[in-house]
Amino acid sequence: MQIADLQYRTVWWQDGAINIIDQTSLPFNFKVLQLTTVEQVAQAILQMQVRGAPAIGATGGFGLALAARLAPAKNFAEFIKKSKETLLATRPTAFDLSYALNQVEAAIAQSPADSAATALQAAQAFADSNVQACRQIGKLGAELIQPNFQILTHCNAGALATVDFGTALAPIRFSKHRNIFVYVDETRPRLQGSRLTAFELEQEGIPHAIIADNAAGYFMQTGQVDMVITGADRVALNGDVANKIGTYEKAVVAKANNIPFYIAAPLSTIDFSCASGAKIPIEQRADEEISYIEDKLIANPNSPIQNPAFDITPARYITGIITDKGIFRPEQIRHLQK
Amino acid sequence: MQIADLQYRTVWWQDGAINIIDQTSLPFNFKVLQLTTVEQVAQAILQMQVRGAPAIGATGGFGLALAARLAPAKNFAEFIKKSKETLLATRPTAFDLSYALNQVEAAIAQSPADSAATALQAAQAFADSNVQACRQIGKLGAELIQPNFQILTHCNAGALATVDFGTALAPIRFSKHRNIFVYVDETRPRLQGSRLTAFELEQEGIPHAIIADNAAGYFMQTGQVDMVITGADRVALNGDVANKIGTYEKAVVAKANNIPFYIAAPLSTIDFSCASGAKIPIEQRADEEISYIEDKLIANPNSPIQNPAFDITPARYITGIITDKGIFRPEQIRHLQK
Repeated sequence: MQIADLQYRTVWWQDGAINIIDQTSLPFNFKVLQLTTVEQVAQAILQMQVRGAPAIGATGGFGLALAARLAPAKNFAEFIKKSKETLLATRPTAFDLSYALNQVEAAIAQSPADSAATALQAAQAFADSNVQACRQIGKLGAELIQPNFQILTHCNAGALATVDFGTALAPIRFSKHRNIFVYVDETRPRLQGSRLTAFELEQEGIPHAIIADNAAGYFMQTGQVDMVITGADRVALNGDVANKIGTYEKAVVAKANNIPFYIAAPLSTIDFSCASGAKIPIEQRADEEISYIEDKLIANPNSPIQNPAFDITPARYITGIITDKGIFRPEQIRHLQK
Repeated sequence: MQIADLQYRTVWWQDGAINIIDQTSLPFNFKVLQLTTVEQVAQAILQMQVRGAPAIGATGGFGLALAARLAPAKNFAEFIKKSKETLLATRPTAFDLSYALNQVEAAIAQSPADSAATALQAAQAFADSNVQACRQIGKLGAELIQPNFQILTHCNAGALATVDFGTALAPIRFSKHRNIFVYVDETRPRLQGSRLTAFELEQEGIPHAIIADNAAGYFMQTGQVDMVITGADRVALNGDVANKIGTYEKAVVAKANNIPFYIAAPLSTIDFSCASGAKIPIEQRADEEISYIEDKLIANPNSPIQNPAFDITPARYITGIITDKGIFRPEQIRHLQK
């Protein structure tokens, strides 16, 4: 992605360290963090310095490659196993993490003698394949976007949520010369829309406006939205989709207004072992995400809070799923299984 | 309403001044403001130190009574006319303001010689009648609430939005011994849910949890909401309702989950001159409500913002409208016309 005229990936390996763009500092400060221990990688995911299912996947993959370099010869298998568990436990809903960790773990198992190199190769392969997948999603999805389209998106499914290009934002990037306009849900509680998606669209010069999440229905109802595109944290076999909390509401309201609702996700986000959305674990996050903005208390101090971070959009609300292998109706997902 | 063991109204006349609870200071500080000029009254409404359709109505009514006391004998009619225009222009969507101003204006016209007294009487009568109406809404609406009900509400339609008791919160107040639980949408951008509704429920000892607006659909979809109740800023003749931005989304999602969706509003919120929701003006408010929390910038600095403050919920999504004269289906509203 382009940031102040330079090209970046969200996560990359360099000089023995994992480098990530610190997403908790954006859009106000651009900082690159170096992660050199498995614990640092886990913390970066937990604290959402890196977030977005494919970006978490790539970071986790590099994290296990790091473990393969750091593992003591004596307790090698145990160290790898524990590192994988630590990384996997950071975010339960996103599926790419599990996918990438399995790829790297398999590489380690296949050539234990040369595990540091093969693990890194596998992690790099996952990251590179995500870049290619997102590019394909962009090209395929762009065919759905007509000139002058007004598009609603929720959360950040941009380059920052992936390794580059993005999922939901990739077709938008590839349509930037078609006079499009993007409505950006601010996406409480973490504001990934108003902080990250708006930042990416500004860097790309794509016209947009930030709106309160509550206003998405207003713009759909008043004929100002031609399509909705979001990313996904996990796609189930029946086409149900887990994504950032609020996605379900937008999908229901889109359907009520006959607005096409698309999910954009690489194949690595599809959990072929998961029969339906009902089986996907929903992460419950800290109260403070709602009651505080940084160190400022913004809610009634003594009130309990409930903070589910994801919800499930049933397949019947989804017009199509834009993958790197084609655009599919949700009921076609099960046929993609190898 | 009860605040720290004392009883308050949201707005009251005392010693020649309008007293209001400053709602921009809650829940962190409890402050009472004295308003002694029409301009101060208009600013208090514009800045949302007082908000909620009935509370704005009562404040505006007292504001015009203030104008009747302050008007110079020479330009009396002109001063009243201008004061009414100034007050009416503060918030275009809420209807009670127009209703209350007309009542006070009529009282002035009927006895110009004694206008200061009659205007104040009319303003006080509006405020008192709102208290009675909300009490009735509470009693009637409570009949819909069964033991152990879990109820979702949006924005603040509590005592603070009215003169006392509230509209949506009145049936909840009257059901507090039935082991109920209230999900409180935080209600971006102004957070009237997490600041005001949560504060009121805490003061009343009613179990509740604050949730992100985006999470309302999750709780509805997972069977944790038995009914939704919100207030209204204006009810049209065909039963369409204008209310805080986001109400429309909650209503659509409630219907998709077969959850009853109720509006609570006194008759003074019904605009019998307004054929349908399409005729209700939607106030667009300042960008800074979304990009700032107090003086803290929270969004991408260079991104445009769109901030509609209300939306229209079509009658077909509304199970019933709880008024002080009974609970009506939306299509019955036109028959209430005198």
